[in-house]
Amino acid sequence: MTRNNRGPRGSYAVGLARRAKIVEAAALRFAQEGYHRTPLTLIAQDVGITEGGLLHHFRSKKHLLLAVMEHRFVSEEEWWSRLPEPMTGLGTLRAMVAATERHLTEPGLIELFVLISAEAADADSAAHTLFAARYERAIDELAEQLRRGVDDGSLRADTDCKAVARECIAVSDGLQLQWVISGGTLDLVEAVRLHTDRIARTITPDGTGL
Amino acid sequence: MTRNNRGPRGSYAVGLARRAKIVEAAALRFAQEGYHRTPLTLIAQDVGITEGGLLHHFRSKKHLLLAVMEHRFVSEEEWWSRLPEPMTGLGTLRAMVAATERHLTEPGLIELFVLISAEAADADSAAHTLFAARYERAIDELAEQLRRGVDDGSLRADTDCKAVARECIAVSDGLQLQWVISGGTLDLVEAVRLHTDRIARTITPDGTGL
Repeated sequence: MTRNNRGPRGSYAVGLARRAKIVEAAALRFAQEGYHRTPLTLIAQDVGITEGGLLHHFRSKKHLLLAVMEHRFVSEEEWWSRLPEPMTGLGTLRAMVAATERHLTEPGLIELFVLISAEAADADSAAHTLFAARYERAIDELAEQLRRGVDDGSLRADTDCKAVARECIAVSDGLQLQWVISGGTLDLVEAVRLHTDRIARTITPDGTGL
Repeated sequence: MTRNNRGPRGSYAVGLARRAKIVEAAALRFAQEGYHRTPLTLIAQDVGITEGGLLHHFRSKKHLLLAVMEHRFVSEEEWWSRLPEPMTGLGTLRAMVAATERHLTEPGLIELFVLISAEAADADSAAHTLFAARYERAIDELAEQLRRGVDDGSLRADTDCKAVARECIAVSDGLQLQWVISGGTLDLVEAVRLHTDRIARTITPDGTGL
């Protein structure tokens, strides 16, 4: 590190990098071992700092949880944006199934999602603001993709794209809760596939499914 | 109170009655003002005891929350059992919409449901046990009602009743979360109606909706 990097700007950059490292380490631990079973000291140890040092960046475990969730939202949006363009109609519904398969590769994060949902139920919480924005964006984006399917004739002209998008997100969230409650025994991908297939049969011109 | 009621049996009965009163008062306050915004002292005051007296019955606010939720599950089951019998096929789907209208009469309890869901995500929690049992019962009961519709020919013979039941509960839970996040602006009843209508169109022999 040169002397220049030790100035206020350098310290700021170092702080940001450390913050990002903590979030990554926490995401990994939460995903592998679960939120409740991961002590902050372990995450601090992973990054090579003390628990006090970690608390300098995140005031509490709950604040860290929020940062992990925000990180996941961004990573989820990046995943969607990397899918073969343009996403339209049935392609979007098939991507919902693929997204579910992806969620199952990091099962601890499904539990986290349920936890954050509850935080978000409190209108005064930081999670609420994050969640409200996330939902609006996710529903609008899905609806927009479905609308392209209406435009190119692959979906019925009378499709209520926003309602379908809302229902897809609700099923995804609700089934994730059931998956957590079932201790991971529910076939989540098959349940999402059944729903998206049902949706397809009601919004394609000839009633075909996925 | 007679002298006999002051014996061990009398005390036990008095304790149970007080416990029930606390749960009722808490349910009312949580529903009206929200869980986070209701201090335990207020609930104790409603019942005419001290906060210490309340904590004698429920070790923490979280334990009280759990008791309120259990109370709601029982009341929900009673509501379903009072519906015109027998519940079959489309009647069950229509009842899902009516149940949603009922939930909206006590909006604070929807927020509570989301909170308890998160508690239940922790496999070691008491909420987990309560929730797992509740889900299994609710899904089995719904599936059984749909199966009667298959038996009387009002639903298609190839209907996967358990999957449909699972999807209905997932949509209900997922939309309740969206409703809370939206600050109550989402038209919850219409969203549930749209979903049950879609379900109906895919499982009735002639493809008619609700």
